[in-house]
Amino acid sequence: MTVVDLRSDTITQPTPAMRRAMAEAEVGDDVFGEDPTVRKLEEMAADRLGKEAALFTASGTMGNMVSLLTHCGRGDEMILGDQSHIFFYEQGGSAALGGIHPRTVPNQPDGTILIEDLEGAIRQDDVHFPVTRIIALENTHNRCCGSPLCADYMKDVGNLAGKHGLKIHVDGARIFNAAAALDTDVKDLAEYADSISFCLSKGLGSPAGSVVCGTKDFIARARRARKVLGGGMRQAGILAGAGIISLTQMTERLAEDHENAGKLAQGLAHIEGLSVDLANIKTNIVFFDLKKHDLSTESLVKQLEEQGIRILALGPRKLRAVTHYHISSKDIDHVLDSFKSLF
Amino acid sequence: MTVVDLRSDTITQPTPAMRRAMAEAEVGDDVFGEDPTVRKLEEMAADRLGKEAALFTASGTMGNMVSLLTHCGRGDEMILGDQSHIFFYEQGGSAALGGIHPRTVPNQPDGTILIEDLEGAIRQDDVHFPVTRIIALENTHNRCCGSPLCADYMKDVGNLAGKHGLKIHVDGARIFNAAAALDTDVKDLAEYADSISFCLSKGLGSPAGSVVCGTKDFIARARRARKVLGGGMRQAGILAGAGIISLTQMTERLAEDHENAGKLAQGLAHIEGLSVDLANIKTNIVFFDLKKHDLSTESLVKQLEEQGIRILALGPRKLRAVTHYHISSKDIDHVLDSFKSLF
Amino acid sequence: MTVVDLRSDTITQPTPAMRRAMAEAEVGDDVFGEDPTVRKLEEMAADRLGKEAALFTASGTMGNMVSLLTHCGRGDEMILGDQSHIFFYEQGGSAALGGIHPRTVPNQPDGTILIEDLEGAIRQDDVHFPVTRIIALENTHNRCCGSPLCADYMKDVGNLAGKHGLKIHVDGARIFNAAAALDTDVKDLAEYADSISFCLSKGLGSPAGSVVCGTKDFIARARRARKVLGGGMRQAGILAGAGIISLTQMTERLAEDHENAGKLAQGLAHIEGLSVDLANIKTNIVFFDLKKHDLSTESLVKQLEEQGIRILALGPRKLRAVTHYHISSKDIDHVLDSFKSLF
Amino acid sequence: MTVVDLRSDTITQPTPAMRRAMAEAEVGDDVFGEDPTVRKLEEMAADRLGKEAALFTASGTMGNMVSLLTHCGRGDEMILGDQSHIFFYEQGGSAALGGIHPRTVPNQPDGTILIEDLEGAIRQDDVHFPVTRIIALENTHNRCCGSPLCADYMKDVGNLAGKHGLKIHVDGARIFNAAAALDTDVKDLAEYADSISFCLSKGLGSPAGSVVCGTKDFIARARRARKVLGGGMRQAGILAGAGIISLTQMTERLAEDHENAGKLAQGLAHIEGLSVDLANIKTNIVFFDLKKHDLSTESLVKQLEEQGIRILALGPRKLRAVTHYHISSKDIDHVLDSFKSLF
Repeated sequence: MTVVDLRSDTITQPTPAMRRAMAEAEVGDDVFGEDPTVRKLEEMAADRLGKEAALFTASGTMGNMVSLLTHCGRGDEMILGDQSHIFFYEQGGSAALGGIHPRTVPNQPDGTILIEDLEGAIRQDDVHFPVTRIIALENTHNRCCGSPLCADYMKDVGNLAGKHGLKIHVDGARIFNAAAALDTDVKDLAEYADSISFCLSKGLGSPAGSVVCGTKDFIARARRARKVLGGGMRQAGILAGAGIISLTQMTERLAEDHENAGKLAQGLAHIEGLSVDLANIKTNIVFFDLKKHDLSTESLVKQLEEQGIRILALGPRKLRAVTHYHISSKDIDHVLDSFKSLF
Repeated sequence: MTVVDLRSDTITQPTPAMRRAMAEAEVGDDVFGEDPTVRKLEEMAADRLGKEAALFTASGTMGNMVSLLTHCGRGDEMILGDQSHIFFYEQGGSAALGGIHPRTVPNQPDGTILIEDLEGAIRQDDVHFPVTRIIALENTHNRCCGSPLCADYMKDVGNLAGKHGLKIHVDGARIFNAAAALDTDVKDLAEYADSISFCLSKGLGSPAGSVVCGTKDFIARARRARKVLGGGMRQAGILAGAGIISLTQMTERLAEDHENAGKLAQGLAHIEGLSVDLANIKTNIVFFDLKKHDLSTESLVKQLEEQGIRILALGPRKLRAVTHYHISSKDIDHVLDSFKSLF
Repeated sequence: MTVVDLRSDTITQPTPAMRRAMAEAEVGDDVFGEDPTVRKLEEMAADRLGKEAALFTASGTMGNMVSLLTHCGRGDEMILGDQSHIFFYEQGGSAALGGIHPRTVPNQPDGTILIEDLEGAIRQDDVHFPVTRIIALENTHNRCCGSPLCADYMKDVGNLAGKHGLKIHVDGARIFNAAAALDTDVKDLAEYADSISFCLSKGLGSPAGSVVCGTKDFIARARRARKVLGGGMRQAGILAGAGIISLTQMTERLAEDHENAGKLAQGLAHIEGLSVDLANIKTNIVFFDLKKHDLSTESLVKQLEEQGIRILALGPRKLRAVTHYHISSKDIDHVLDSFKSLF
Repeated sequence: MTVVDLRSDTITQPTPAMRRAMAEAEVGDDVFGEDPTVRKLEEMAADRLGKEAALFTASGTMGNMVSLLTHCGRGDEMILGDQSHIFFYEQGGSAALGGIHPRTVPNQPDGTILIEDLEGAIRQDDVHFPVTRIIALENTHNRCCGSPLCADYMKDVGNLAGKHGLKIHVDGARIFNAAAALDTDVKDLAEYADSISFCLSKGLGSPAGSVVCGTKDFIARARRARKVLGGGMRQAGILAGAGIISLTQMTERLAEDHENAGKLAQGLAHIEGLSVDLANIKTNIVFFDLKKHDLSTESLVKQLEEQGIRILALGPRKLRAVTHYHISSKDIDHVLDSFKSLF
């Protein structure tokens, strides 16, 4: 039985080109700054995002942690969305290890945060308050249907941050999906970010690794933060080799994933017993709700599994399916057929 | 000019009985466990709250911090109200110093948190999530008009916590106000708390100090947490002496403060240009909003100051007045007259 | 039976003048900056130490913690003596709560640290290393027989720190003992310190409290650190009132304690079975070793206790006796007689 | 010019077998626990070290950090050697991020710590002290000439730890070098360790990665610690594939590196102007001192570099050379010739 695995785009296998690149990568000791492939990836990434410098990290979570540890001291406050990956899915590490106080404000269904909510959360200078240091955004926003944040919104946040002397970090794990969905240059989405991280795995297919981009000075300090986390790898060029393929060969094809996700969402919306917020599905992540009350998401997931289809149950009514480069339009047909047969 | 200072009940001066008690307190080195007055206060407090043991701390913030550091390890998550003092006014210290991740859920206008919101915030066991360890409540709830949480609500939270193996900490800075307003024994409000702190200053008039109550084992560990914060004071019996007066002579008179606050709230509600949420004003804290748009809270505060009346502006429209034992019913008349003359 | 308590100078009872001062202290809400007695104490202390500003804290440990949290960010390194109070007796709080990495270097028997040891411990700029931020000294040095560090030594450390851009914090819990022993103005001992804390309790007899001194900017930031630790007390003027007596009436009499300690040390040195390092006993702390191998320090302490004499056993062979203003020259005679009768 | 790079064994390039293994590795999403190659490596490693379970980490520093965060809570104390990698070269991360207080005791020249020094550093239960939780050892000990700690010593430490209820962590970055040098099964060196980490890079040649071994329960919790550090990598099987080659093909050849190091040390010892502590050079790390006072280590390193030889200057007189699988006996001849020509 063929498996159609829609649980996440993190499950993607390296492409043959990546495997070749990894086998042949020219490597050196990156802790000594001597890995040419890592350097090349970092330069390419910085250039692509329109930033001065970049740093390879082992994961998206590490990219975020490194950025937050670099921007924020003990006791600084970070404003971020209540549905954000950093707040939800990173074990509270910024508080646990960094002593950074998270101040959550509501994410709108499209992943944005109202400018007035951001502004309302900025602390005055008072001995009772932590010091507001940073606004953290997520683009695309995973738990908000993978919604992309557009350049205009970023500019508004940028202006607010500028006015109050705050930093902006963008968790851009899927920033290339955002750029594809908005038909924008990714640079335009990164412009107002003091730091932005993106994942080479996920939609871009690398086995592992993320990149943080920012100013030269920021990256020099971020390198220290990576080291203390244990993220300094020796011949990291092996992974960076795959990362270069991600950047050069995989970003252009993301539109295809979005098309497949759209088709899936449309199809699911027509099935009685399911509900889909079509308005906010613009990239490769499809959230939908189970309305059929004699069925649990858990048992639905199991029934699909038996048909070779894997999706994630995120709660008693909430489900998620994610498209990626192993998923074809035909796979979507198959998935929709299976759903129809079950409902 | 007589000053009517309604900014906070923290401004209360020690009573003559307190000054006498402090001057005559029998003291010893409390770090060696040899201060009889501290011991007496701790025993009285534990007894009063229905707990096994108690610990004197320098402040309410320290009482909360000591409790949270004792219950929670690095990376544990605390569920608490988005308007809570711990989240709002304690510099984010639990994250900054303790590595505790705060998960805020909405406070209702009466200071409670919906049980479903609490339950919805409890994390499953998953490598992406922090471990939910504790629910922190506040009683009375300062930023929610000083609303008291009743024993029934505490029981509901207690049941939820029991079901999920969570601890409950109550920031009971003004727990005696809650007991007075609800005409309950304070024990009934403390029953489901694994730890509860209350302030001897504020409404109870002591110059400084709070007390944390809990099990013997908890208090033994809390003593370590107090020490590391630098809260171990030598002849602390001086302050504890005043604290004993707070516990024996000051709790009964809080109803008077509540009466004055009610009278003030009623009066302000009748003034055009002000708005008061009368339904939630049950203790000694009066929040009200300025509706007159040609007047800022700042300039209103200044104008009142010129008439010897002090209140706090908490935002562009929000004001707060707090009654305490220096405030008489006649003072309230005077304050209302002044307001009327200004509006 | 009269008790001669030589365990510590922390056990001192407030003097009648202090009790009077506390009973009559003019107080206000110090969190609002309105306590005149606290202000007066802070100004007196700053003036006395030759610093711009000062901050009252609940304890010596809090004074040190506040200073270290203010100077050092997460991951900064502090160089300090391996026998220092901060390293030994403060629960590792600077690491536990502040994420500060302690780098210990050997204390010499006189409490100093060799300049070459300090210099050798300063880290180069390298991604593997923490950033050396501060040198912490202790004057007088408790575990080194209460030895005072002289102004010349402080200057040498000051020059080293200046050369490498490091801060200096002095744990001056007993800095007035140092000044008395060295017959120096305490200002001269504080000159090279970026921050210096001293205790009002201990030899100066106040029931509780310490003061941190430094620049205005430093103290403003230290005030935030005190608040997050829960050290913001409301009508702290009660304690500050005693503190003012400590500063005005108690510093001059410390020489007497030193004389008594010297007499005690001399006497003990003549007892067979005890060994005293007379060279380093210059203030009010007498360390001595038990050489009699059929006797444990524990049982010696018990036997003395039965005669109304209290000293501390700090290890299987190490004992400590501390003089203070409740100890007279006659008490020392009594103590020496008791020792002689036991040996 | 051929380069003989003796700076570190971390500079090793992956072998052809590793490159092949990485290109062909069967991979899955390791965050979902689905990477078969990672699982295989973890099982092999656990088996090899005689432990129940194992966890792949991005680096040796991460392996140590993960272990310490898992064993120790905020404010626990760790006893470790003053020359240890964890204390010296990991940015103080255990304190900075984990709030763990390091208590250093002297490393002997052979990398051991005297049992009496360990025992003397264990804290009693007292409110002034942190809680001693763990002893951290390093085997082989990098800064102590790469000395191996033998099984008998481990047993002595194990007994001490058992007696006091302490955990033992072994930073076994080069534990296979220790086993080779002592001609022991690596299991015998791991027996008393509650956790032990070892590096696949360094002498074993993998491009990146370490493995932590311990009980099943420990590893389950360590997996959480790895995640919060950002060490959860998706298709980590690529790196694990190389790691399997390290374990199966590279451990047996370490004796050769030791032989070459011995030859180098012997040769250097005969050169006037250099001094080598031959007694402690038993593995692949050669420390030596420059005695010639008209030459700095810096300029010596430069002169060697010009001849294609790279070593590290670790101080004004201290130098280090490390052998590994790119270094042949002939290379050592060449290096010794160069040295002779320079002296």
